[in-house]
Amino acid sequence: MKFNKELDAIKTYEAGKPIELVVREFGIRPEQVVKLASNENPLGTSPKVAETIRANADKAHLYPDDSMFELKDSLAKRFNVEEENIIIGAGSDQILEFVSRAKLHAGSRVLMSRVTFAMYSIYALQQGAEILRTADYRHRSEEFVPMMREHKPEVVYLCTPNNPTGDATKREEVFRIIEAADPNTLVVVDGAYMEYAADRDPDYRIDPAELLRYPNTLYLGTFSKAYGLGGMRVGYGIARPEIIRALMKMRPPFNITALSLAAAIAANEDAAFVQKSLALHRQELPRYEAYAQAHGFDYIESYTNFITWIFPEGRNASEVADGLLRRGVIVRDLSSYGMNALRITVGTPEQNDRLFEAMDEVLG
Amino acid sequence: MKFNKELDAIKTYEAGKPIELVVREFGIRPEQVVKLASNENPLGTSPKVAETIRANADKAHLYPDDSMFELKDSLAKRFNVEEENIIIGAGSDQILEFVSRAKLHAGSRVLMSRVTFAMYSIYALQQGAEILRTADYRHRSEEFVPMMREHKPEVVYLCTPNNPTGDATKREEVFRIIEAADPNTLVVVDGAYMEYAADRDPDYRIDPAELLRYPNTLYLGTFSKAYGLGGMRVGYGIARPEIIRALMKMRPPFNITALSLAAAIAANEDAAFVQKSLALHRQELPRYEAYAQAHGFDYIESYTNFITWIFPEGRNASEVADGLLRRGVIVRDLSSYGMNALRITVGTPEQNDRLFEAMDEVLG
Repeated sequence: MKFNKELDAIKTYEAGKPIELVVREFGIRPEQVVKLASNENPLGTSPKVAETIRANADKAHLYPDDSMFELKDSLAKRFNVEEENIIIGAGSDQILEFVSRAKLHAGSRVLMSRVTFAMYSIYALQQGAEILRTADYRHRSEEFVPMMREHKPEVVYLCTPNNPTGDATKREEVFRIIEAADPNTLVVVDGAYMEYAADRDPDYRIDPAELLRYPNTLYLGTFSKAYGLGGMRVGYGIARPEIIRALMKMRPPFNITALSLAAAIAANEDAAFVQKSLALHRQELPRYEAYAQAHGFDYIESYTNFITWIFPEGRNASEVADGLLRRGVIVRDLSSYGMNALRITVGTPEQNDRLFEAMDEVLG
Repeated sequence: MKFNKELDAIKTYEAGKPIELVVREFGIRPEQVVKLASNENPLGTSPKVAETIRANADKAHLYPDDSMFELKDSLAKRFNVEEENIIIGAGSDQILEFVSRAKLHAGSRVLMSRVTFAMYSIYALQQGAEILRTADYRHRSEEFVPMMREHKPEVVYLCTPNNPTGDATKREEVFRIIEAADPNTLVVVDGAYMEYAADRDPDYRIDPAELLRYPNTLYLGTFSKAYGLGGMRVGYGIARPEIIRALMKMRPPFNITALSLAAAIAANEDAAFVQKSLALHRQELPRYEAYAQAHGFDYIESYTNFITWIFPEGRNASEVADGLLRRGVIVRDLSSYGMNALRITVGTPEQNDRLFEAMDEVLG
């Protein structure tokens, strides 16, 4: 049987190893596994969200409200935009997929950072598009603007804060890049970790409402990180109505489950939980910076809920990751991104203790 | 901003009206609305599933196990196939999308019944494929085989039982069509309502394991109907490993939420709930046949959990649907399918009483 030729080029996304896998492969008890690999919220699920899920558990047989009226209304209020500016995806991932399918085709070009979220290129390859990357993993206008002028890419991805590196791009630098875009270029500002950057330094805060003054910009946000809904798959896009309408054409019906909708509405209105998550993060992040300094390796200044440790020659990140895994601590090895580095979610104080203990053993 | 030209042809799927919409538009109290439009399970959510959801409510922050090991294992046992034969989708809808994207492109052809599940054509149009339809809504080999020989479509859809008509195709007739397929034609047997057909008459039961003897067949099933998980979006495809591997390339990571995975595993092991649902359906369906006969209109013999009433000239199905809606009863008007007909989910005894009362008023 023949399949479309684009399939030949497709790599499958490598997800963070789930706890179940470590339990199965290494025989470690589930409660002993520490997962710091997928940037899940270490505070867990907000109690208000869990209560909402329990209250809706017996409605699992009913299809969701496909208009997503309530969630859009809640998001519109939070961001001071209109409902026609909003699209909801099964994670912001799914909106990336809509972007690729609405804008890209064989022969079109996408521009992104050298090291950035893997799904940008995976979805672009599914459309047969050509991928252009900057030399630096940081999003610098000195690199982006000339490449945009030369190649006129259909889509530009600005991931700020950037994943899996953790750095962020200042607001004025983001605007500089957006303003250099061709009218036919869609500039996607992926703010999946924006809550952490905004909390750390207001100069890095991108306000989706502010982006609406540009006709060709799409902002992406998610409930998976600061809002603690990684398992529920809910993200959102904010843009001018013309862009939202085009993306809506690619949206499959019922793309958000009934419980995910209910959970996201509850999460969106639980600002206290987000503040608590940010406060915990502010308290724990410096421990990771200190550990790296004390052990003679480098790290990237983090504007996210994770930190990227960069190892010197002679210390192999994959081996460190493997050593941690055997001790029941799951982190993300970045060698497939061409970096001798680990991406580690900043966890609870106890989880971080466990990570440092395991690291001590692995480093020997 | 320019978008891909395929977008011009895309129609958006019209979902059944959710209860929330009727509440908003007609000011009817939610508990007074009877929704018989989306073929949801009238018994609701299985108590075992609801309990599983409640038990997992505080894990909403954790990404799902993207290998879906447990659910695949459970399905493999139920269907007597291997895990490598299984792909899980966000509803079987999503697997239809994978099929379109893996097989279809501009200039390729898809063959389907004149009246069948709307997403087949929507996903095909997204790929720019040409849609061929039989003259009959029934899947007859006399029509399918010559059209397959003449047009060599990349994909053939056999929806049995068929939605939104409710009829089904006998097993031997399905095999006759499959056996006439070109080696490069993927024959998709969509069994979303198969549990109801198999319960009514074993001659209509298609066993996915049996289909594995054909190299180019994909069986689709869902948890949305007999298993009572319409809101959770979980479906599955069963085929030979070559086909599954190709479709897996189109699967976005984490396409099933953590709670949907847990719910589907619990549902898959709750055969008693399915039996109870089928028993209720066997008891209530004859009331719909009798009502139609008593009021002088036609119906299609149903192998599903809904019935399709066909009205004579002079009685407009859209007007009847509108009259029911104003009385808080939601059904599906099939006029957009070119049929002067209503598709009505067979509900609980009380829901069906409400429907018949409202119909009495509307018919006047």
